[in-house]
Amino acid sequence: MPPANSPSLNNLRVVLVAPRNPLNIGAAARAMSNFGFSRLRVVNPYEVAFREAKSAVGASELLAEAEEFSSVADAVADCSLVVGTTALGNRMPQHPVRDTVPAVGSIRKRLGSSNVALLFGSERWGLSNDSLSHCHWLLHIPTRKVHRSMNVGQAVAVCLYEIVRASSPKTPAEKTRLATSETVERVTRKLLEALHASGYVNPRSEASAEEKLRRLVRRLHLNAADAEVVLGMVHKILWKLGTGS
Amino acid sequence: MPPANSPSLNNLRVVLVAPRNPLNIGAAARAMSNFGFSRLRVVNPYEVAFREAKSAVGASELLAEAEEFSSVADAVADCSLVVGTTALGNRMPQHPVRDTVPAVGSIRKRLGSSNVALLFGSERWGLSNDSLSHCHWLLHIPTRKVHRSMNVGQAVAVCLYEIVRASSPKTPAEKTRLATSETVERVTRKLLEALHASGYVNPRSEASAEEKLRRLVRRLHLNAADAEVVLGMVHKILWKLGTGS
Repeated sequence: MPPANSPSLNNLRVVLVAPRNPLNIGAAARAMSNFGFSRLRVVNPYEVAFREAKSAVGASELLAEAEEFSSVADAVADCSLVVGTTALGNRMPQHPVRDTVPAVGSIRKRLGSSNVALLFGSERWGLSNDSLSHCHWLLHIPTRKVHRSMNVGQAVAVCLYEIVRASSPKTPAEKTRLATSETVERVTRKLLEALHASGYVNPRSEASAEEKLRRLVRRLHLNAADAEVVLGMVHKILWKLGTGS
Repeated sequence: MPPANSPSLNNLRVVLVAPRNPLNIGAAARAMSNFGFSRLRVVNPYEVAFREAKSAVGASELLAEAEEFSSVADAVADCSLVVGTTALGNRMPQHPVRDTVPAVGSIRKRLGSSNVALLFGSERWGLSNDSLSHCHWLLHIPTRKVHRSMNVGQAVAVCLYEIVRASSPKTPAEKTRLATSETVERVTRKLLEALHASGYVNPRSEASAEEKLRRLVRRLHLNAADAEVVLGMVHKILWKLGTGS
């Protein structure tokens, strides 16, 4: 076990997207406290659920400090790696999917140097396509095909357990500083502007084009310096296209 | 993952001793179903809780087949290894205690040849001294000293996950086909054209700009499909800039 206040564990943000059941919010907080994590974020929670969870016993301090956001983009803005969790249902995921063991290997490595967001979807629907488009890749807990979907509180517990399970990191922290999600999102928006201006995106398919672009940009794993260079390039192109600000 | 009906997983009996909360009984059943276990036993459950859990959705078949016992002795009678779970509180356990990883190693070995019982105590008291006296040794999930006690449904999920974890395949490296150097160079050239057309590159620093861009594009590790998409985008932008071929 790493010490309770290990800075690397504090770099993890557990993000519950649109949770509806106060018991699940409480359970996530309890597992976080059990395993030494502290940063809980909720995106658009069902208000009653969030209030009730906060008043429940156990992990109350952690819940009191939970941060509320109105969008996934804001909730992951300070993270350089965004991982969604999935039960993998029937549809083919458009993201790379990794089982817990290799997934946590990558997460642990990244936690050494920057913030990582681990997203859990709502009890009913999981993560929406829009939420998924903010993720670099997906983590899948190896459940049975005939009963894949886990309770969200249990899924949080299993993921966090796997993260602390290997007590000493086997690999040194990555050295290149990757762009934060906020910067990556700025790149996405600027590019989208350029694609609009050039007529590449047509208004009818706008939403899906935006999601596709968001996923593509995240697959590039831009480092912080390159992201600024790309922003400069797109800015110049936009200016020439006559729509730059 | 072992196949759903792997005989070794069927050799495990998950035994809930004196559970009081129907949600926890249901959560234990759900985690069992998620990870491919089928034999749930309850000892002296609070009757209302057991009835309510049975009528809950999810893992209903498993719950319908849950066996009820009036003593721990009866519930573990057909097992050759009995393992209790403990949060380790403040008292000194009179049993050997093993962390999950070595504990599960022993459990898995035994599951190959005979039945194993894994006991979880009541939400409030854990396992009583009487229950503990039926155990060969205790399993401890490595939680933080300041907040050791896990929710029982989450503890069941973590233990069962650890049991199937070892048999889940180590996922091979991602198979995404990367773009060939030829394609990457085409992307570089097209981008360079766009940067010229927009005035981002000035003729004096042309050579160094080209080198920088070439290195940047290679750092993106574009996959084959994404490279084609990017080519299409830049092509459209070039056309709009009035220099497209």
